[in-house]
Amino acid sequence: MADKRMEIAAFFSSWNKLTAAQQQSLCSAAQLRSVTAGEMVHGGSSECTGLLLVCSGRLRAYSASPDGREITLYRLLQRDVCLFSASCAFHALQIDIAIRAEEDSSFWIIPADVYQRVAEASGPLSTETNRLMASRFSEVMWLLEQVLWQSMDRRLAAFLVEEANLEGTEELHITHEEIGSHLGTAREVVTRMLHYLQSEGLVRLGRGSIELTDRAGLEAVGDT
Amino acid sequence: MADKRMEIAAFFSSWNKLTAAQQQSLCSAAQLRSVTAGEMVHGGSSECTGLLLVCSGRLRAYSASPDGREITLYRLLQRDVCLFSASCAFHALQIDIAIRAEEDSSFWIIPADVYQRVAEASGPLSTETNRLMASRFSEVMWLLEQVLWQSMDRRLAAFLVEEANLEGTEELHITHEEIGSHLGTAREVVTRMLHYLQSEGLVRLGRGSIELTDRAGLEAVGDT
Repeated sequence: MADKRMEIAAFFSSWNKLTAAQQQSLCSAAQLRSVTAGEMVHGGSSECTGLLLVCSGRLRAYSASPDGREITLYRLLQRDVCLFSASCAFHALQIDIAIRAEEDSSFWIIPADVYQRVAEASGPLSTETNRLMASRFSEVMWLLEQVLWQSMDRRLAAFLVEEANLEGTEELHITHEEIGSHLGTAREVVTRMLHYLQSEGLVRLGRGSIELTDRAGLEAVGDT
Repeated sequence: MADKRMEIAAFFSSWNKLTAAQQQSLCSAAQLRSVTAGEMVHGGSSECTGLLLVCSGRLRAYSASPDGREITLYRLLQRDVCLFSASCAFHALQIDIAIRAEEDSSFWIIPADVYQRVAEASGPLSTETNRLMASRFSEVMWLLEQVLWQSMDRRLAAFLVEEANLEGTEELHITHEEIGSHLGTAREVVTRMLHYLQSEGLVRLGRGSIELTDRAGLEAVGDT
């Protein structure tokens, strides 16, 4: 129990400003959950999964169109906290964000109603929640600006560099279809752009793989 | 002073949960400002204008590209509160939102540092701030989904209906260029789409005006 308490505490910078009873509420409500790569974690605003505190692995938050197209909004890594899976706790937040595990992952879930009750009573926790929301909002605004004002070749180059950083390798095993779902575009567009980047000597396309052959060149293309 | 106090109080649902000293801080810091139609109110994240409480008129919040293209994020009407002009108070909020008056307008400005100090000490005000941010976030996510998944004819039809509602008339005096700046697209695209809507009998294009001749038809096209 002391271990669990320390683990939960590490996710909140305002922890020491909570009362003992508030700390206890969050801790005793938190449940550990493990998922395997590819598993759905949260299905949209109709579900009330709760606040997610990521212990290990990697989750992908994305938006899906009615006809099944997707765009990645952001990734959740170890130590990240996800508010949007608890959007039922924020009445004004009507956002359909889906979350899926990209790797085997584990996370604590704090039920939305428990979190909401503590945050409403605590200025510091509420302020921390605010910062978290502001930070996600900034990421989504950045994405909107990218979609509106940036060309797809720049977005693709920036995505490949980010992906190589996340995976820790220059050789990515990802399909053109999957890249399309990250960037919110069709597979055909991705394939055409990848061939363009290959003709510029920036990547080498293999069977089911993309090798970054000139990372500096890709960073220059993707620089926004 | 009693009038000013009541006016400010009306903007906050958590007002009665603030201490007298907190109410006093917000009130005495608030300054009334009037602007004329077309005037810039806030220039982006580098400025720290403060929280805006709109008394009358209409403001437009938008994002601009480095090369001067624009897209409307949302409108601020009477009784609306704008957080993003105080984004300097929310360290994690790095969003370049510009705000311009669309009509002659007046609003209270509460300096960001004053607002931040009170919100950090007050759970209820902080929670209200959270709801406000969540609500704007939802609008921007909706816009992102529109830009990604909706065709421009639907977006244009929905915009014309919204504009007619705001202006209270079926005859809009707005240029194709201005519509492009609302929707984040080029004038040529707007002109082409308007001619398409005219050929469908939904609008009549005049010199510097657009008449909505079939509002139900436009609503059907724009329905998302």
